[in-house]
Amino acid sequence: MRKSRHAVVSLGIAFAVALSAAARAQTTVPYDELARTEAAANAENGKRVAPLKSIGNPGDEVSPEMLAMIGAPYPPHFNADPKSAAEWKELIDRRAKLAIANIPAMKEKLGVKVEETKIAGVHCFIVTPAKIPTENRRRLLVHVHGGGYVFGPGEAAIPEAIMMAGYGGFKVISVDYRMPPDFPYPAAMDDAMAVWKEVVKTNDPRRMAIFGTSTGGAMTLAMVLRAKDEKLPRPAAIAPGTPWADIGNIGDSYESNEWVDNVLVTWNGWLGRAAKLYANGESLKNPYISPIYGDFKGFPPTILTSGTRDLFLSNTVRTHRKLRRAGVVADLNIYEGQSHAQYQFNISAPETREAFTDIAKFFDKHLAE
Amino acid sequence: MRKSRHAVVSLGIAFAVALSAAARAQTTVPYDELARTEAAANAENGKRVAPLKSIGNPGDEVSPEMLAMIGAPYPPHFNADPKSAAEWKELIDRRAKLAIANIPAMKEKLGVKVEETKIAGVHCFIVTPAKIPTENRRRLLVHVHGGGYVFGPGEAAIPEAIMMAGYGGFKVISVDYRMPPDFPYPAAMDDAMAVWKEVVKTNDPRRMAIFGTSTGGAMTLAMVLRAKDEKLPRPAAIAPGTPWADIGNIGDSYESNEWVDNVLVTWNGWLGRAAKLYANGESLKNPYISPIYGDFKGFPPTILTSGTRDLFLSNTVRTHRKLRRAGVVADLNIYEGQSHAQYQFNISAPETREAFTDIAKFFDKHLAE
Repeated sequence: MRKSRHAVVSLGIAFAVALSAAARAQTTVPYDELARTEAAANAENGKRVAPLKSIGNPGDEVSPEMLAMIGAPYPPHFNADPKSAAEWKELIDRRAKLAIANIPAMKEKLGVKVEETKIAGVHCFIVTPAKIPTENRRRLLVHVHGGGYVFGPGEAAIPEAIMMAGYGGFKVISVDYRMPPDFPYPAAMDDAMAVWKEVVKTNDPRRMAIFGTSTGGAMTLAMVLRAKDEKLPRPAAIAPGTPWADIGNIGDSYESNEWVDNVLVTWNGWLGRAAKLYANGESLKNPYISPIYGDFKGFPPTILTSGTRDLFLSNTVRTHRKLRRAGVVADLNIYEGQSHAQYQFNISAPETREAFTDIAKFFDKHLAE
Repeated sequence: MRKSRHAVVSLGIAFAVALSAAARAQTTVPYDELARTEAAANAENGKRVAPLKSIGNPGDEVSPEMLAMIGAPYPPHFNADPKSAAEWKELIDRRAKLAIANIPAMKEKLGVKVEETKIAGVHCFIVTPAKIPTENRRRLLVHVHGGGYVFGPGEAAIPEAIMMAGYGGFKVISVDYRMPPDFPYPAAMDDAMAVWKEVVKTNDPRRMAIFGTSTGGAMTLAMVLRAKDEKLPRPAAIAPGTPWADIGNIGDSYESNEWVDNVLVTWNGWLGRAAKLYANGESLKNPYISPIYGDFKGFPPTILTSGTRDLFLSNTVRTHRKLRRAGVVADLNIYEGQSHAQYQFNISAPETREAFTDIAKFFDKHLAE
């Protein structure tokens, strides 16, 4: 099915791309003809045929800083296909360097300091804001970074932790968990759980939250599943941002927002390859890998964030509904026009401050002082 | 810009449609070629080119009843273009008959009775469930139906009111407001406000909510704007379902979900024509017509509902964010795979019960007893 879909798609694209810009401008096919061909293509039950589209930037209530991200070309690595551990590492290192280059300015601007440490043998960063409000003095957040279980090693892990510390006024521990190609599942989860198990010994979990975006969102959910199964304390709240809740290519927006999302673009690029590398033969429906297949009963209050163009829009809303169905307090925030995780890429965008402020308010409401 | 987009789209479609099913099956264009052509088509800032797609039904956590709706062909009237008042009326009557035919079974199944009345001279329906829970005895909901300001006259107005009464155990007044072609803006809003002004004389607004879907969602928002401006009491909560908050063709999902949503399909069909018929020369940015341009400060707690394929996904999330930015309690629920308003089309779908139960719980939380 997938194959034949791509075949049809490809021909449509190839044909359209073959038209020169001049030819396009000279062609005027009336809307009514499009409506007729679309109606004919959609006469069959169970599938939806959408035409080739050119989608402009969303309207001017989106900030210029966010529009610059929304309208950007696909990232150069979207279809990366590393053939060996060495090729993966080269790609991972290259991207990490880009992320790390931005960190000094980010720390400076948001007024946070970063220290390295080991917790239960796991490399971590302690991210502390210059000012911690009184109500947050005894509160502690644990951060698990995103990056498809491959990107974001070392200091590249911490941009989101810096934003949460800076905008929210919280002390944050960011876990630099082990990743493929050297350490597939369950290393990342084992590291995150080792840190959790250690920090709850000396901190009251009623004053703690776990958060993370994308892969970090999936890990946040999976950590609560494991805490339940291992009879460990659970956090008082969680913020899985656009969580990779289904690591398999399952969920409506994997199709409807494919090639529309300009961050992840498609599951069939590096993303699905990273999924398989991480799972390393484990079922993609293992709830510690795809937490959407876990039991959400007893989960703490949860705040979720996504965008209308997000490839993980369905991951996010499926998680939200499943939480609600399990009786969990769950708050959903979807941003106009944003692709995957764009609410946490640029501290100059007002939507970034907005997203982290919303999460901070949610934590403030649900965490003990 | 719109014209040239449609031109490109049309050619893509025409080409794809021209391929016979057999030819499609025989063609195998590799994914990597698609990735290359898409990357090339997306090398420019400020626009997103998405290829022709065939999207299958979402996964099996969606109920069979909902999947039957999600996978259905476009409605026959999606591109209706009535050329006269008589042609509009013929279309409106034809669709009303279909809606009305389902009402007796719906009343029976949900155990509600319906009476006609006039309130402040406006034709209304009083929809009463057989059992009203104690906490709802003194509560009253006002319903404004959907239908693009043209569809849903008379008894065709009430299916959603029946669902709310039946699933929520509330007494509901459904306003059969005047509509085009005979009565353009502001007749619909004037009728709804006349009813509101009258019922708050004898009912405590702290025990009242307003709700409606699509056009009814926009009217719900616009009624609060008018209540503010006219110094009338405001309801204690509102439930604008997938509100037509921007009646103009503005909002990202008008493009990203165009031809993906199988209920409204495109703004350029009957929908945009109805918008212009209703506005009747008024600005489409008049906040009583497009409430997204109003001031949401002081709004009551609001619950919003939409779906990932909804043409009004952006209308819904723009409204949600604007409410949050104004400091309003606002709850957002997005259903996997649903097109516009599909959560309120079939009482046999579990998602329908779920959506109305969520709204009822929200009202229960925010309305005085």
